Amino acid sequence: MLERRKIIIDTDPGQDDAAAIMLAFGSPAELELLGITAVAGNVSLALTSRNARIICELCDRRDTKVFAGADKPLVRKLVTAEHVHGKTGLDGPVLDEPTMPLQDQYAVDFIVETLRSEPAGAVTLCALGPLTNVALAFQKAPDIVERVRELVMMGGGFFEGGNITPAAEFNIYVDPEAADVVFRSGVPIVMMPLDVTHRLLTRKERVKRIAEVGTPPAKAMVEMLEFFERFDVEKYGSDGGPLHDPTVIAYLLKPELFEGRNCNVEIEVKSELTAGMTVVDWWHVTDRKRNAKVIRFVDADGFFELLTERFAKI
Amino acid sequence: MLERRKIIIDTDPGQDDAAAIMLAFGSPAELELLGITAVAGNVSLALTSRNARIICELCDRRDTKVFAGADKPLVRKLVTAEHVHGKTGLDGPVLDEPTMPLQDQYAVDFIVETLRSEPAGAVTLCALGPLTNVALAFQKAPDIVERVRELVMMGGGFFEGGNITPAAEFNIYVDPEAADVVFRSGVPIVMMPLDVTHRLLTRKERVKRIAEVGTPPAKAMVEMLEFFERFDVEKYGSDGGPLHDPTVIAYLLKPELFEGRNCNVEIEVKSELTAGMTVVDWWHVTDRKRNAKVIRFVDADGFFELLTERFAKI
Amino acid sequence: MLERRKIIIDTDPGQDDAAAIMLAFGSPAELELLGITAVAGNVSLALTSRNARIICELCDRRDTKVFAGADKPLVRKLVTAEHVHGKTGLDGPVLDEPTMPLQDQYAVDFIVETLRSEPAGAVTLCALGPLTNVALAFQKAPDIVERVRELVMMGGGFFEGGNITPAAEFNIYVDPEAADVVFRSGVPIVMMPLDVTHRLLTRKERVKRIAEVGTPPAKAMVEMLEFFERFDVEKYGSDGGPLHDPTVIAYLLKPELFEGRNCNVEIEVKSELTAGMTVVDWWHVTDRKRNAKVIRFVDADGFFELLTERFAKI
Amino acid sequence: MLERRKIIIDTDPGQDDAAAIMLAFGSPAELELLGITAVAGNVSLALTSRNARIICELCDRRDTKVFAGADKPLVRKLVTAEHVHGKTGLDGPVLDEPTMPLQDQYAVDFIVETLRSEPAGAVTLCALGPLTNVALAFQKAPDIVERVRELVMMGGGFFEGGNITPAAEFNIYVDPEAADVVFRSGVPIVMMPLDVTHRLLTRKERVKRIAEVGTPPAKAMVEMLEFFERFDVEKYGSDGGPLHDPTVIAYLLKPELFEGRNCNVEIEVKSELTAGMTVVDWWHVTDRKRNAKVIRFVDADGFFELLTERFAKI
Repeated sequence: MLERRKIIIDTDPGQDDAAAIMLAFGSPAELELLGITAVAGNVSLALTSRNARIICELCDRRDTKVFAGADKPLVRKLVTAEHVHGKTGLDGPVLDEPTMPLQDQYAVDFIVETLRSEPAGAVTLCALGPLTNVALAFQKAPDIVERVRELVMMGGGFFEGGNITPAAEFNIYVDPEAADVVFRSGVPIVMMPLDVTHRLLTRKERVKRIAEVGTPPAKAMVEMLEFFERFDVEKYGSDGGPLHDPTVIAYLLKPELFEGRNCNVEIEVKSELTAGMTVVDWWHVTDRKRNAKVIRFVDADGFFELLTERFAKI
Repeated sequence: MLERRKIIIDTDPGQDDAAAIMLAFGSPAELELLGITAVAGNVSLALTSRNARIICELCDRRDTKVFAGADKPLVRKLVTAEHVHGKTGLDGPVLDEPTMPLQDQYAVDFIVETLRSEPAGAVTLCALGPLTNVALAFQKAPDIVERVRELVMMGGGFFEGGNITPAAEFNIYVDPEAADVVFRSGVPIVMMPLDVTHRLLTRKERVKRIAEVGTPPAKAMVEMLEFFERFDVEKYGSDGGPLHDPTVIAYLLKPELFEGRNCNVEIEVKSELTAGMTVVDWWHVTDRKRNAKVIRFVDADGFFELLTERFAKI
Repeated sequence: MLERRKIIIDTDPGQDDAAAIMLAFGSPAELELLGITAVAGNVSLALTSRNARIICELCDRRDTKVFAGADKPLVRKLVTAEHVHGKTGLDGPVLDEPTMPLQDQYAVDFIVETLRSEPAGAVTLCALGPLTNVALAFQKAPDIVERVRELVMMGGGFFEGGNITPAAEFNIYVDPEAADVVFRSGVPIVMMPLDVTHRLLTRKERVKRIAEVGTPPAKAMVEMLEFFERFDVEKYGSDGGPLHDPTVIAYLLKPELFEGRNCNVEIEVKSELTAGMTVVDWWHVTDRKRNAKVIRFVDADGFFELLTERFAKI
Repeated sequence: MLERRKIIIDTDPGQDDAAAIMLAFGSPAELELLGITAVAGNVSLALTSRNARIICELCDRRDTKVFAGADKPLVRKLVTAEHVHGKTGLDGPVLDEPTMPLQDQYAVDFIVETLRSEPAGAVTLCALGPLTNVALAFQKAPDIVERVRELVMMGGGFFEGGNITPAAEFNIYVDPEAADVVFRSGVPIVMMPLDVTHRLLTRKERVKRIAEVGTPPAKAMVEMLEFFERFDVEKYGSDGGPLHDPTVIAYLLKPELFEGRNCNVEIEVKSELTAGMTVVDWWHVTDRKRNAKVIRFVDADGFFELLTERFAKI
């Protein structure tokens, strides 16, 4: 059995971020959620920090600490993805405005403080959005890098190409410099690229099983997924939308669902055409340092089974 | 039945270039080879212009006109690939030095003159190496661009990544600026990327069938392929090496073996990390002009059958 | 008469940073120094945060709050300049290790807090090193940008070229991304480029006049300047070294010594060859927004007179 | 006394190109003009190849061979400068359409052939526009590089900044890749940057002296200069316009008018912001190879005296 892991979820919800957070809420035996840190990405920081609290309230977890962090990337202008997630980021179900407050502390400071106060190697960072908050924490407190147990992150793509441009996946595209800082930091990284998440389509029968859970969170999730998949169904003609962010949490719960390889990953920051591309040396054609475990294969049915099972426990 | 097409083969042989040239020699009913233009690439121009003549002599086609063109890329220093092709570019069999002469004319001038003297729309360019000669011809004589019937070229890769760097395929990597010029020229392009050629592995039984042809050219080809595949077998653990360049000629002979899509393709020229990447907008996520038919799927058995059949006719 | 201005000095001492700090210490009627924030640049953060305190103690100003900030640039690896400033950054005189403590607070947080707690428009930022701390403060707290009275900074060059590369001045070269963030932030900027500071050479008679002040700080300063000028005398064959950083403080004390023009300034972050260049549109050949007052001319004798006069008041 | 030098003038006339060509026509004792090769730049190739012939006819030198070369840069789209030179490139005087024909040969081929047929070290290339033709000649025939006596070219700027963008001078900006090829070729280069040409203003009394020559070519030149200077007078508030291109010819006639230094010069090709910048290492702060003699100082009165004297001899 896995020990209980302390995690911080850094996120820009987003329907699939919501699914990830809910997967964590449904797994209290394995995961101790120290806090949720919001970052600008899919939508503005005002909305992502609101949406994180909406999910907490939807799951009746108002005790969760939610922090607001960076409202823009390190260097670039913020790009958002309302065309995918809708105007609020959580379009789909009717959702109440949250009543629980944001924490006063700056999300980056919370990450720094937590990593310094918890035992070294105890805290796992789960990054579901642009890596701005994480990069800023590493900038402020270089000492915490080696205290991180693991950074498990959704982002990038290699043999699958990009989704926001032909070369780049959205999370990395939004803040390539932050990704560059994090990938060069030496922190142990597990990367969930589009190559994995495009295997995790919200097919009808899978969504149906979530619907059968029947609880309010599950119902809201189903409505979110139905909204969310529109974009990909239209664009790729695929059978459902790809469920990106829950892979990060699923990896902590059932790593055996995933297969990957230690590779070098470098982030394109110079060119406009390929900005935000994760250049993965899957075949080890260079001598560059292997700085990430890049996941390429996933047991899709096992993944959706896990998701449904845990949604039922919220 | 297809009409007989006039072609110029622009090439940097290379064992797989040799296979392409031999495929053309084996298809006189369909293809009229106006000339072979050599370019620096896999090995130096001195060697590629020599190797082209070796192939002609091996196939007893000393009447073929062979021209030497660019000895280096438009802007960059030449990078070669002796690690793949061996010191001569045709390592494998014992091959005699050629005795037939090179033409005096500069390859680029031959391309220009031929396209001007042949009827508009009559000549197909078959590009098997870096696009330097083609770009220089388009630079010297912009009027020829619209006289080209089609440019069928091997180069690039998209969902397959690169082979010389994680992002770039060799032909484009050597001269990205030339590729950029050609892809922006408006010439009709058919592109054979690694995504296709990595499906065309020189598996034992396929090579065996070529060996059974039993002629001297087929025997030499088998020895070349056995040398050539070492690199990929070692690097990718694949079952044989990928047969890149004959796809270009096979497409002219049996287009029905291939499937692709009209897409925008842009060439990365700014960044060192991703230099020479062909950014293919396969999913049409941008509004950029569709400037190439990008082939993605191939009937591999049909391809090798064609190859063997034509090698027998040399 | 000028009112008394509240300032924060952000700095990476460096002998010329020391001269700037001493100029501020000698001008208590005009300047209220709220704190000194150290940043990595000329030497490591460990040394710059030490050197700032050494200067305070040398001038008997142990009450000054000194904070340590960023130990590296936003995105790039730290480049330092021991070849100019010596191993400690303050090579020249014999200086005691400081005994006054660093403040606990992170320099960036001090800048944020001060700008939020002081009246809007009250605080002037004086930046003498790479702009990392300032960029991080603007990232953490975008609301403070419009509360800054003015950012007066030493950095860049235009018709004078660079000093660390042919195109770039050291402060900007070390952290071009930070400079880019700051120059695009909308904060009112006064920029002191090499074009000004190369007119401020530490000629013998000028240094002699400082020596004649005769106090321990003045004596130490003279020894610093004698060390510091070696580099430029050797490199440019100039008559003394350029006194960069005190221009920032001098501008607050006697703006009439300086002449400049409102221009657009953009920072080169893409190219390796020209990284960190400040592209100044002095002639207004573009329509880009005028985001900085760029100083080009200085009354050099007036400047050294001011310096000597104020050093005498420490 | 200087021996008679064989020269090819590569040019994109342009009023100041016209002045350079006329200076050569006025100096038959020192210069043997083998041909004029036109390139796209200030205006289109159609116009520059026309304008070159207009100048020949204006000076009654219909025997001059004029060739048309590249109609666009190596890689980029052509940028022209009608805002400076007027719609025709030679706006100002009323000029007849030329009746002398263009040579059939491609300008690049003429350069190659001439350098191969003349004795090694005999021919000087005088480049007054973008370096496209020269780069293409070096690409086609690498053997000619070491046969060039000297390439004297107008282009670039360093302590003077640019004229088409804040960082770049027009000739280099139009085709940075060509300039990059030429500056890395090893050919001996003398470079006349804006730093020199901005010292050569067409002040009233200088133009008056040319007018006093009284011949038709001199009269036409005066009208051209009066048109040409409008742009700079307006932009820089200067007293006349800078006479760029005749510096190249003047250097061959009276090198003692000029002073410079052997430096490394690299061309910016990666960044959009600084594209086409000539990064001159005037102070030798790098170890890069010194690949050009960069002129910085000029005897302006001596230059205009020479110009007037030679215009009188046409």
